[in-house]
Amino acid sequence: MPLKPDLPLPEPETRRVGYAIVGIGELSSSELIPAARTSEHAYVAALVTGDVEKGRAFATAHGLTDADVYPYGEFGKLAEREDVEAVYIVLPNRLHREYVERAARMGKQVLCEKPLGVNASDAQAMVDACREAGVLLMTAYRCQYTPAHWAARDAVQGGKLGPVKLVDSIHGQVEDDPEAWRLRRDLAGGGPLPDVGIYCLNTIRFVLGTEPEWAFATLYQPENDERFREVEESLSFMLGFPGGVIANALTSYGIHKTATLRVLGEAGTALMDPAFTYEGLKVTLTDKEGEFTPSFPDADQFGLELDHFAGCVRSGRRPWTPGEEGVQDHRIMDALYESARTGQVVRLEAVPGMDVFRGEKPEVPGQS
Amino acid sequence: MPLKPDLPLPEPETRRVGYAIVGIGELSSSELIPAARTSEHAYVAALVTGDVEKGRAFATAHGLTDADVYPYGEFGKLAEREDVEAVYIVLPNRLHREYVERAARMGKQVLCEKPLGVNASDAQAMVDACREAGVLLMTAYRCQYTPAHWAARDAVQGGKLGPVKLVDSIHGQVEDDPEAWRLRRDLAGGGPLPDVGIYCLNTIRFVLGTEPEWAFATLYQPENDERFREVEESLSFMLGFPGGVIANALTSYGIHKTATLRVLGEAGTALMDPAFTYEGLKVTLTDKEGEFTPSFPDADQFGLELDHFAGCVRSGRRPWTPGEEGVQDHRIMDALYESARTGQVVRLEAVPGMDVFRGEKPEVPGQS
Amino acid sequence: MPLKPDLPLPEPETRRVGYAIVGIGELSSSELIPAARTSEHAYVAALVTGDVEKGRAFATAHGLTDADVYPYGEFGKLAEREDVEAVYIVLPNRLHREYVERAARMGKQVLCEKPLGVNASDAQAMVDACREAGVLLMTAYRCQYTPAHWAARDAVQGGKLGPVKLVDSIHGQVEDDPEAWRLRRDLAGGGPLPDVGIYCLNTIRFVLGTEPEWAFATLYQPENDERFREVEESLSFMLGFPGGVIANALTSYGIHKTATLRVLGEAGTALMDPAFTYEGLKVTLTDKEGEFTPSFPDADQFGLELDHFAGCVRSGRRPWTPGEEGVQDHRIMDALYESARTGQVVRLEAVPGMDVFRGEKPEVPGQS
Amino acid sequence: MPLKPDLPLPEPETRRVGYAIVGIGELSSSELIPAARTSEHAYVAALVTGDVEKGRAFATAHGLTDADVYPYGEFGKLAEREDVEAVYIVLPNRLHREYVERAARMGKQVLCEKPLGVNASDAQAMVDACREAGVLLMTAYRCQYTPAHWAARDAVQGGKLGPVKLVDSIHGQVEDDPEAWRLRRDLAGGGPLPDVGIYCLNTIRFVLGTEPEWAFATLYQPENDERFREVEESLSFMLGFPGGVIANALTSYGIHKTATLRVLGEAGTALMDPAFTYEGLKVTLTDKEGEFTPSFPDADQFGLELDHFAGCVRSGRRPWTPGEEGVQDHRIMDALYESARTGQVVRLEAVPGMDVFRGEKPEVPGQS
Repeated sequence: MPLKPDLPLPEPETRRVGYAIVGIGELSSSELIPAARTSEHAYVAALVTGDVEKGRAFATAHGLTDADVYPYGEFGKLAEREDVEAVYIVLPNRLHREYVERAARMGKQVLCEKPLGVNASDAQAMVDACREAGVLLMTAYRCQYTPAHWAARDAVQGGKLGPVKLVDSIHGQVEDDPEAWRLRRDLAGGGPLPDVGIYCLNTIRFVLGTEPEWAFATLYQPENDERFREVEESLSFMLGFPGGVIANALTSYGIHKTATLRVLGEAGTALMDPAFTYEGLKVTLTDKEGEFTPSFPDADQFGLELDHFAGCVRSGRRPWTPGEEGVQDHRIMDALYESARTGQVVRLEAVPGMDVFRGEKPEVPGQS
Repeated sequence: MPLKPDLPLPEPETRRVGYAIVGIGELSSSELIPAARTSEHAYVAALVTGDVEKGRAFATAHGLTDADVYPYGEFGKLAEREDVEAVYIVLPNRLHREYVERAARMGKQVLCEKPLGVNASDAQAMVDACREAGVLLMTAYRCQYTPAHWAARDAVQGGKLGPVKLVDSIHGQVEDDPEAWRLRRDLAGGGPLPDVGIYCLNTIRFVLGTEPEWAFATLYQPENDERFREVEESLSFMLGFPGGVIANALTSYGIHKTATLRVLGEAGTALMDPAFTYEGLKVTLTDKEGEFTPSFPDADQFGLELDHFAGCVRSGRRPWTPGEEGVQDHRIMDALYESARTGQVVRLEAVPGMDVFRGEKPEVPGQS
Repeated sequence: MPLKPDLPLPEPETRRVGYAIVGIGELSSSELIPAARTSEHAYVAALVTGDVEKGRAFATAHGLTDADVYPYGEFGKLAEREDVEAVYIVLPNRLHREYVERAARMGKQVLCEKPLGVNASDAQAMVDACREAGVLLMTAYRCQYTPAHWAARDAVQGGKLGPVKLVDSIHGQVEDDPEAWRLRRDLAGGGPLPDVGIYCLNTIRFVLGTEPEWAFATLYQPENDERFREVEESLSFMLGFPGGVIANALTSYGIHKTATLRVLGEAGTALMDPAFTYEGLKVTLTDKEGEFTPSFPDADQFGLELDHFAGCVRSGRRPWTPGEEGVQDHRIMDALYESARTGQVVRLEAVPGMDVFRGEKPEVPGQS
Repeated sequence: MPLKPDLPLPEPETRRVGYAIVGIGELSSSELIPAARTSEHAYVAALVTGDVEKGRAFATAHGLTDADVYPYGEFGKLAEREDVEAVYIVLPNRLHREYVERAARMGKQVLCEKPLGVNASDAQAMVDACREAGVLLMTAYRCQYTPAHWAARDAVQGGKLGPVKLVDSIHGQVEDDPEAWRLRRDLAGGGPLPDVGIYCLNTIRFVLGTEPEWAFATLYQPENDERFREVEESLSFMLGFPGGVIANALTSYGIHKTATLRVLGEAGTALMDPAFTYEGLKVTLTDKEGEFTPSFPDADQFGLELDHFAGCVRSGRRPWTPGEEGVQDHRIMDALYESARTGQVVRLEAVPGMDVFRGEKPEVPGQS
């Protein structure tokens, strides 16, 4: 499937949405751009990068031309590109806001990597800017678009597990590059929590559908490890949800790659292990009858994400994970850092209801 | 293998240790007494029960006579039974202390089910009584005697996982009998925490070898469920260990049977799932090379426990899990309940060193 | 539960059936006699053994008396024991016939270990003897009484796998005792085939319900290994069933313990791995929806077998795996050895229909 | 990584090898061409297709031009393309020979999909043609280039399993398109055997390293299914290897997708499940210590294959799976069909030695 269609474009309502990818790091080059090939409704129309030479080689390889490659300094020129209807911001967290706001002002629809910003007020400003500009803003929570995560959520919401009492999640890996921007508080907004722990947080909220009422956290920042001068190595947190549901989570930049989620209900459990990887997601539903591991259609997570947002661009509907979904995670992460700093439980603003921060339910392959 | 040897007993130093089993509930009848058959150094010599008729049927079936069965009121008559060298207390928690103290005064060696008592001072009194009487006291933590749990501990202690950063554990099941003594605070000393959550707590301490410095917990006690009028339905806790190691745990009487433990190190992880069941324990060690699931010799957990204590009775050495090991868990559980009540982190008394409360290392099948 | 009830026996139609266990080898002592405790309808009333001293120790341990122990030479005295309604023959294969025939002549109901005899005519003689004596004869195929094997069979028969096309099975282990009677052709009737390969053969027939039309086999008997002077080390066989279904199987005394069965249908597959062990049987049903591993009630395989036959003794009905079931396996094994000897496919007598050699369907725990 | 390098080519000995892909069916478009991106030493330089329009769309999407697309009728024009050093033949089996011979006459190096031809003499002709033309011929057995298959082979060859006694393999899937060329005997040379069963055959030979001495097979061809008018639905086969090693295999177009291989040694077993899929290969090594599942570097199977042959093109060395490897599988498949037709065991020509038909050992990621 071509990255850039070589045939006359179809009518507006059905033609693919052209994206500019802003930032060509590991994620863009290994996952996003290849994924665009699997998309039904999206294609990559332009690349924005700090390394034009690399960008051009990339462009050639993917059927784009040198003219489709922009240095960061010429980001504004995308305004002239009518075929670029959306931008996908894949930059260090600190830069999200600037580029989201500039894109919004150009009238581009905005898909932004997680975490949305570096804290709740930063993220809220992005939501406000997009609202004012009349463009959509989606937080790129790919896990909320996979058949595996929906199978776990459906087991919870459909009652298959009975009343849910507890949730447990772990996400961590070794970060051993002391120069990584992810280890700079200023650029990242925190350590493993906003980078990998956010998967635990966001997915716990997703499967329950409700919002936590309080938060507690403790963190560990070793004194003699240059990697962790600015941010925590590990963070453990606990969240209280309506109805007495309690969730525990662990995140770390100092553990062998681990990604799990377990929902514990009275009648059964749902285990995702691995829970957050790009491939090989596995769900095990256990109850008194036995263990069931559903199989899922083979679909690229990023392709699903790009397609959902492309569909929203066409329909004008609010994405399932809009900016507000990203802001809420920041509110909770702000509370977790506050709890870790003070040693106290932090109360969160009550948010009754289900899926309060979410928009249009996505189409998920294999789901009826 | 006979429960009661029918041949002339060998010399004192090698002959089997005769136990009186005090309490013939589900655990005794389904696990302990059958396990005694697999023991090399122990046998069941007497039964103490509230239901003499049931006890006699049981005795006949196991090669004992009616004379080997005692009602609780005649517990004191065990003093005359020289062949009863040890007692195994398998009563509701609240009754442990009385029977341990009485046994100690009769000069019997004492093995007592977990939790040792109903709180730390109760448990400490038992330790004191046995010390004064010059008899051994062992807390029946069967998990500290299995090849599977030692494999997990060895992976941690032997460095195979690299520096350990985090631990995560879950133990829960549905308790649906509103009449169960386990749901009476007075008899049990708490809810799922001292009954099943204690496995998380005790095993986390066992694999790390160190003692926690602080504790935090939250619990959930539903208002409209008659089962949980006195005790919590679920409890989540967090413990801080030396060196910044953090452990999370979940325990509940309201979840589908689940028993797991995961140790997360920089170079690898150790997963036990299931972690605390009587049979089928499975350990998975994961590192960059792959996943290894060791196989273990087929050995009954209770048989191993009975044998270890029998060996201590013969050698006079302190058991691996003496009374002090049980007291320490009570100190921590007391702190967890205090934390849940106050919403505050509770500091624990610093206990530097490794395996501070433990005695003679047990012989574990398949371990070199 | 008592091996020997100590209470007045209930009315004839409901009272337990007393068995004499004939032969106290590994299987009897480790599996059968402990299993009798789990039985609802059976108990062990007498032991027949070549080692009376061992038998008496065993008796004492299980609540029997010295008078319940008989040397082989006094097997005939069981005739006087009215409480011994059934015998369970657990002797080397060659001796089955003699003891089955003698038991039948005494009017005892007969349960006989697999393989029923040493070849088809030997086995047929046992069937004839029991028919003439008017007693029941059951072949002890424990796998046909477990919830796991019925789950596999039900998946096949219930159409869940779609039309079944192929079956594959492996059963083998290392036999390293050159003195074992299992390695003497005269005593065993063959090598791994009648001992462990028979599980593949019998279970393939059980899950399909039909009878093979032809057989092909090849075997390997190493020249320089003293263990395999008389019997094969390994044997591979292929069977053709009605409708073009083909089954492959491997059996060996020279491989690391392996026990599997896989049924391959158009819509799904059923895998048993392990398939034939005493414990831990696991069934995985796979189709386009995913993988399902049913959980089963915890029930002792030998207990189920003893109970089924006890029920037949009370009802007078033909057991599910009568002598004829054992004869049919011998016919096929005779053909397999003939094929291995001649290098030719051997045609079997056509046996149309389902479960032609089987009797009363057993009650299986967890099955509706 | 570009399909076609956009930078000045490096010196001859290190520059990438340009391939023409001949045939753009499912395999080419979904696997081979994307895989070329992962290759270090190869790139796609031209496409040959029956559907030029499709080819051009494909070319544009992958950075090629319309001039790089050739209809079959202009295959000969590749002679002028110096940058096309190799061709990869991905056509229906019957057409392999014609295109291999034409490519050889043009002096192109030849990589040909499995099965090499439609029978042994057809395949031998291709080997001869390439030898005469002085070009390399490699059979595209991707499984012989993966870390997973080498891990299984190393376990066998390195003695970790002890002496190997038996092998068991299954490969099948549902083929439900009655129009598929794979169901035409003339085009395919057989049914599931040369298409999917060949994986069992080839991988059994690969892990053992030796060649079979005899073959037996039976097949099933349903009478009333239009799909199987010309070819078998299922085929079961047995092979005898030196030293008494026996292998069983099952292949079918009528079973739910299954792909396994199990090697049974005296000290352990190696299980591949799935064994032959494009992704997710899993190896489990079992011995008395436990079960080990190695992890492997993430590498595309087709990329590894393309790289190996590119390396051979540069070095002039014989590929690990040359044409002769493909001929040998055809000899055995010819024997299997003969056996199925005659009902007799077919003796194969003795081929003593190890890896007799193989060339230069490939570099496999993660292998030392």
